[in-house]
Amino acid sequence: MAIKGNLVVGQSGGPTAVINNSLVGVVHEALEQADIGGVYGMLHGIAGVLNEEFTDLGKESAKTLADLRNTPAAALGTVRYKVTEKDYDRLVDVLETYNVRYFFYIGGNDSMDTTHKISLVAQQRGYELQCVGVPKTVDNDLAETDHCPGFGSAARFVASAIRNTSFDTRAMGTSGPIKLMEVMGRNAGWLTAAAALAKEDADDGPHLVYVPECPMTAEQVLADVERVYKANGMCVAAISEGLVGPDGKPLFKSGGKKHVDAFGHASKGDIVGQLAEMIHAEMGVKARVDKPSYLQRSFAELMSPVDREEAYQAGRAAVKAAVAGVTGQMVTLIRQKGPEYACTTGLAPLEKVANAERKLPRDYMNKEGNWVTKKFLEYARPLIGGPLLNYGRLQVHPVPKAK
Amino acid sequence: MAIKGNLVVGQSGGPTAVINNSLVGVVHEALEQADIGGVYGMLHGIAGVLNEEFTDLGKESAKTLADLRNTPAAALGTVRYKVTEKDYDRLVDVLETYNVRYFFYIGGNDSMDTTHKISLVAQQRGYELQCVGVPKTVDNDLAETDHCPGFGSAARFVASAIRNTSFDTRAMGTSGPIKLMEVMGRNAGWLTAAAALAKEDADDGPHLVYVPECPMTAEQVLADVERVYKANGMCVAAISEGLVGPDGKPLFKSGGKKHVDAFGHASKGDIVGQLAEMIHAEMGVKARVDKPSYLQRSFAELMSPVDREEAYQAGRAAVKAAVAGVTGQMVTLIRQKGPEYACTTGLAPLEKVANAERKLPRDYMNKEGNWVTKKFLEYARPLIGGPLLNYGRLQVHPVPKAK
Repeated sequence: MAIKGNLVVGQSGGPTAVINNSLVGVVHEALEQADIGGVYGMLHGIAGVLNEEFTDLGKESAKTLADLRNTPAAALGTVRYKVTEKDYDRLVDVLETYNVRYFFYIGGNDSMDTTHKISLVAQQRGYELQCVGVPKTVDNDLAETDHCPGFGSAARFVASAIRNTSFDTRAMGTSGPIKLMEVMGRNAGWLTAAAALAKEDADDGPHLVYVPECPMTAEQVLADVERVYKANGMCVAAISEGLVGPDGKPLFKSGGKKHVDAFGHASKGDIVGQLAEMIHAEMGVKARVDKPSYLQRSFAELMSPVDREEAYQAGRAAVKAAVAGVTGQMVTLIRQKGPEYACTTGLAPLEKVANAERKLPRDYMNKEGNWVTKKFLEYARPLIGGPLLNYGRLQVHPVPKAK
Repeated sequence: MAIKGNLVVGQSGGPTAVINNSLVGVVHEALEQADIGGVYGMLHGIAGVLNEEFTDLGKESAKTLADLRNTPAAALGTVRYKVTEKDYDRLVDVLETYNVRYFFYIGGNDSMDTTHKISLVAQQRGYELQCVGVPKTVDNDLAETDHCPGFGSAARFVASAIRNTSFDTRAMGTSGPIKLMEVMGRNAGWLTAAAALAKEDADDGPHLVYVPECPMTAEQVLADVERVYKANGMCVAAISEGLVGPDGKPLFKSGGKKHVDAFGHASKGDIVGQLAEMIHAEMGVKARVDKPSYLQRSFAELMSPVDREEAYQAGRAAVKAAVAGVTGQMVTLIRQKGPEYACTTGLAPLEKVANAERKLPRDYMNKEGNWVTKKFLEYARPLIGGPLLNYGRLQVHPVPKAK
């Protein structure tokens, strides 16, 4: 029999288009569980626990919860606070004070680390607390799961965006034939690689994708762009914000200040702007850039229906597992074998996920490291939830030239 | 009775999400007109005439034409070539050689100038040629028309994008509470102002919009951002790429090279990046930026259904007018009086449109020049074709704090 008590759920790290689906999944399942009393949301993640700022999610209307499933970003507010060792006792104190017996954290690997440590401290203190993580990240870099809720929708946005900007680039002809789009993913190239899903015809953009897992010199990128441009009269490339050189350092020395976030992650410089300047200087051809930045993770209009449902089910599965006595685990997505795409949920120990990073496997990229393989396309295509809009192309029937 | 002969149609300048609807409108109407023989497309606008590169649009399938109505960018290819005085005789020579009697150019004010001059040269030479312009521009800056096909869809994208990034910003709380989105529109603020359509609740983003018509100093922007941030704990601003200071010059001295396009338009520097750096330095608060650039004009997934239909009807109206003997005119959109939004097409002399620029009227912006008025919202709202997605918000029912 499950322990009786209250539940808290929080959202952490960068928001996604579907993270609220996981929240609603937790709430819907919790409301059906007799042993769960109050269903509380932490306002701004773990900071909401430290500050005792909880909202009673059980009092939200069914309509609000339904609308949240269409709504991007984190309805509870998120946080990028690095929990310190001395915070953990305080966290468990607060949870105990509010008779919280179920703790759910929707987030990436830093959040899984936090969840893992809370579960350990609670165990040490003999306080019964079921802690289950719900995976979330557009970067798709969590270990132990086939993919992460949030990735499919961001991938759908990135593929659509680069397809649209490729059509624009082709239309512009000689007046702007090179386009570079910067894609999110500080250390992992999953989302940048997803740009390749936009390519339908052989000469369609994008033509090149550059990911952190395949280091490149600026000269290699320039040579690739030049080759594609000569062959096609245009070139569209998706470039990870985290692309580095063979020495692991940014391709260009930064003129500006370096920013480091609360977790010690350094932010990268303006890589596409600098590459565009180099291309213009070296090739004499104008290169244009798109930096959709935060739109990639928040563009609810392009939510993948597959991603939406999986995010929701991951939330429900976390509650079911906790009520069944599971703790210290993260919900995972397990792809089923067979011709049709299908996923079920599973569980993996938080300690295996915490602070691990799952990079794009080397065989998902070609030998040159500038394009994806069939294996990647087969992996990623089902996740974006159906084909992109059907676009037309003129066949072009040349009118015979007059003599 | 209309003169018998062939038709050419071209697309010019920056593409839009719906410019192919105007093309298909021209083709559909032309195929129904007994006096029009060949229906030819110029490949890459006026360059296609100079190079005698035409495609026979009458040979495209009905399916291709239908698909093109969903397809962004310019299917014929566009061009940014400044026609010189000596080109005009050559242009009319080519049109005469191919027995072209109907000339349609889908574009902005530079294109209307070109169309006007071709009509004059043909008249001077006594060559009967019906020249009609079809308006197109996301900038919405053409004179004589209520609005331009292309604007509504770009406005829908910009409003959606800033709403999404606003939700993201609110969710991030203190870890990135200021967001600046750069919006297209070199000299006119229509598209930037459209960001205001995203605001539903009083504390929703965006909170500020800055347009070229209302010059600002960097210090004024900083003071506004600081005030909004203190009141709301966050601030989201839409900033025109063409925002200038009271002296008409960019807000920041450019460190980089100045680029000037074929028409002498200077490109602006990285205004949002520079403002974000200033905000961080002066306020000590992190400001993040989005630069969706070319996605604004090419994002077919957010095509406004109103814009799509008007672009199509503008194409059809151009052909009908030409067959009825009209030349030297541009199709316009005329908003009907009444409680329900409706537009009909009209005509305006090309010479009144050519090289004119319709700025955002001063009374569409507030006195401070940092937000729109009700008048603008009433003007712009029908053009985006229905409300944005319905997003949910938690009501937030605080859990009483433990003693």
